[in-house]
Amino acid sequence: MTKADLTIRPITARDEPDWRRLWTAYLAYYETTVPEAVYATTFARLLSDDIREPRGLLALAEDRPVGLVHYIFHRHCWRIEDACYLQDLFTDPAARGQGVGRALIEAVYGAADAAGCPAVYWLTQEFNYAGRMLYDRVGVKSPFIRYNRPPK
Amino acid sequence: MTKADLTIRPITARDEPDWRRLWTAYLAYYETTVPEAVYATTFARLLSDDIREPRGLLALAEDRPVGLVHYIFHRHCWRIEDACYLQDLFTDPAARGQGVGRALIEAVYGAADAAGCPAVYWLTQEFNYAGRMLYDRVGVKSPFIRYNRPPK
Amino acid sequence: MTKADLTIRPITARDEPDWRRLWTAYLAYYETTVPEAVYATTFARLLSDDIREPRGLLALAEDRPVGLVHYIFHRHCWRIEDACYLQDLFTDPAARGQGVGRALIEAVYGAADAAGCPAVYWLTQEFNYAGRMLYDRVGVKSPFIRYNRPPK
Amino acid sequence: MTKADLTIRPITARDEPDWRRLWTAYLAYYETTVPEAVYATTFARLLSDDIREPRGLLALAEDRPVGLVHYIFHRHCWRIEDACYLQDLFTDPAARGQGVGRALIEAVYGAADAAGCPAVYWLTQEFNYAGRMLYDRVGVKSPFIRYNRPPK
Repeated sequence: MTKADLTIRPITARDEPDWRRLWTAYLAYYETTVPEAVYATTFARLLSDDIREPRGLLALAEDRPVGLVHYIFHRHCWRIEDACYLQDLFTDPAARGQGVGRALIEAVYGAADAAGCPAVYWLTQEFNYAGRMLYDRVGVKSPFIRYNRPPK
Repeated sequence: MTKADLTIRPITARDEPDWRRLWTAYLAYYETTVPEAVYATTFARLLSDDIREPRGLLALAEDRPVGLVHYIFHRHCWRIEDACYLQDLFTDPAARGQGVGRALIEAVYGAADAAGCPAVYWLTQEFNYAGRMLYDRVGVKSPFIRYNRPPK
Repeated sequence: MTKADLTIRPITARDEPDWRRLWTAYLAYYETTVPEAVYATTFARLLSDDIREPRGLLALAEDRPVGLVHYIFHRHCWRIEDACYLQDLFTDPAARGQGVGRALIEAVYGAADAAGCPAVYWLTQEFNYAGRMLYDRVGVKSPFIRYNRPPK
Repeated sequence: MTKADLTIRPITARDEPDWRRLWTAYLAYYETTVPEAVYATTFARLLSDDIREPRGLLALAEDRPVGLVHYIFHRHCWRIEDACYLQDLFTDPAARGQGVGRALIEAVYGAADAAGCPAVYWLTQEFNYAGRMLYDRVGVKSPFIRYNRPPK
C-alpha cells in the first residue's frame, strides 16, 4: 500500500459496523469496554452537526476502513477559540506501518484549522511506546501529566 | 486561619478585580500572559449560565479572595455524561499551607457531582512538586502524558 | 542556624551511634530496613582506606550530627576515571530548610574533584518532590530511568 | 535465525575489532564518541581478571558478533554483596528482533548470580521506546530517575 491509497473522511451513518469494530479494538487496547448505550450515544454524537459534539474521521486503505480518530472541541480559558482534544486514535494492527496514524492526526490538524481552533492536543500512556514513536514525529511531548479524581 | 474561615463560592461579576489579580498571578507561574480580550472573554464566560462555558470558583479566607479554580465540562466518547476538566487552580502564595487548594479541588468534585459528571481530571507539569504534593492526596496520578501539535 | 554553623566532615569511628540513627531514618523513608550485618559491614567499609569502598560524610549543625551522605566510586566504560555514585543522602527532618542537603552534595562534588573523578550522579524517586526541589538547583535531571532485574 | 544459533560468551582479546565496531555503533546511538585512550583502557579492563573492572559479553549469531553488553560490579551500602550495573547494551540493527538483547541481559543475570551479586540494574532514556519494549519484559521499571552534577 502506498500513501496514495489512503483516504481520510468523516464518519457517516453507514460506517457504523466498521466504526464499532475499530473502536472496540481500540478500547480493548486500554483493556476496557463500554456499554451498548455508549456505542449508540457516541455514534449519534459523531453524526451530529453540533461542533461541540465529538467529531470522527475514518481512514480507508483501498476503500477498506483501517483506522479512526475521535476529537472534541472544548473551551479553553487561556484563549478565545476552543481547544481540540484528540481523544481516540486507532489503526487496525494489520494496517500498521503505513502512515495511517499520522494521516489521521494530520487530518485532525486540518479539521482544527478549518474550525479556527488550531491548538490540538492528546494524552497517551507514558509506556505507549509504539504510539509515542509516531507522536514524537507529528507532535511535541509536553511536561504535563494527568491526575484523576479518585474512584469513589 | 482554620478551615472554618474558608469559603468557596462561584465567581460573580463584582469579583472581577480579585479574579484578574489571582489569575494573572497563576498565568505568571506558567510564565505566560494573555491579551485583554482573553480576560474579558473568559470572565464573561465564567458568568454565563451555559454549562459548557468555563465555570469558576473563588476561595475566600476571612472574606478575602485568596484562590480560584476554573473547570470545563466537555464531551467524552467513552461515556454519556461529560468529563470535567479542572484547568486552572491557584492559591495566593501568602495563603498557602492552609488547605485552600484542596478545598477548591473538593468544591469542583462537588460541582461535578451536582452536574451529574463526576469524572474530574487535571493536568500538571511533572516538576510542579508543590502542586503534586497536594494532588497525590486528593487525586490519583495516571500514566497519561500530554502531547501538543507543534507550533506552526 | 546560619550556614556558617554547618560543618561537613568524613564519618569517623566515634560517629557510629549518630550514623546509625541518621541512616536508619533514611532507610525508613524508603520503607526499608537492613539487617545488623549490613550496618556493621557498611560502617566498616565507610572507615576503610580503600577508595572503592563506600565513602561517607557527616553534616554537623552546631556540632550536632544532622545529616549524612554515602558515595561510591566505580568504573565507567565511557571514561578512564571512575564515576561517583551518590547513593544515600539524608537530613534530619528537624534540620531541614537550612542548606544541609545542598552542603552535603557540594561536599561530595569536592571529594569527587579531589579524587579526580568529577562525574557525580544520583538516583531519586520521581515523586520525591522535596528532594527534587533541591536537586533541580544543585544538579541536572537526565532522561534516564532505572530498571531492575525482577525479584526471583 | 533461531535462538539456538545464538551464543553469548565473554569478550576475548581477539574480539577487539568486532567489539570496537559494535561499541562505536552503541555510542553513536547516544550521539557520543570516546577518545582512543578510552577504547584502549576499557578494552584492557574488560580482559582483566579483576571483578571490579568492567565485564563484557559478546553475542554471536551463527558465529558472527552481533551484540555486546558491559556490566560493572560495585559496592552498595544497603547490602553486603555488590550490585551489578549493566551499563552498555547493544544489538546490531541488522540482527534485531531475534532475542539478542534479551539473551545478553539474561547472560548478565547468570553472571551476576555466579558472582553472588544477583541484584542487576540498568538505566535507560525514558524515550528509548524500542529498548523499553524489551526491558518491560525482562526487567521491572522503578520510579528512580537520574540526576547528574551540572557540567562545570
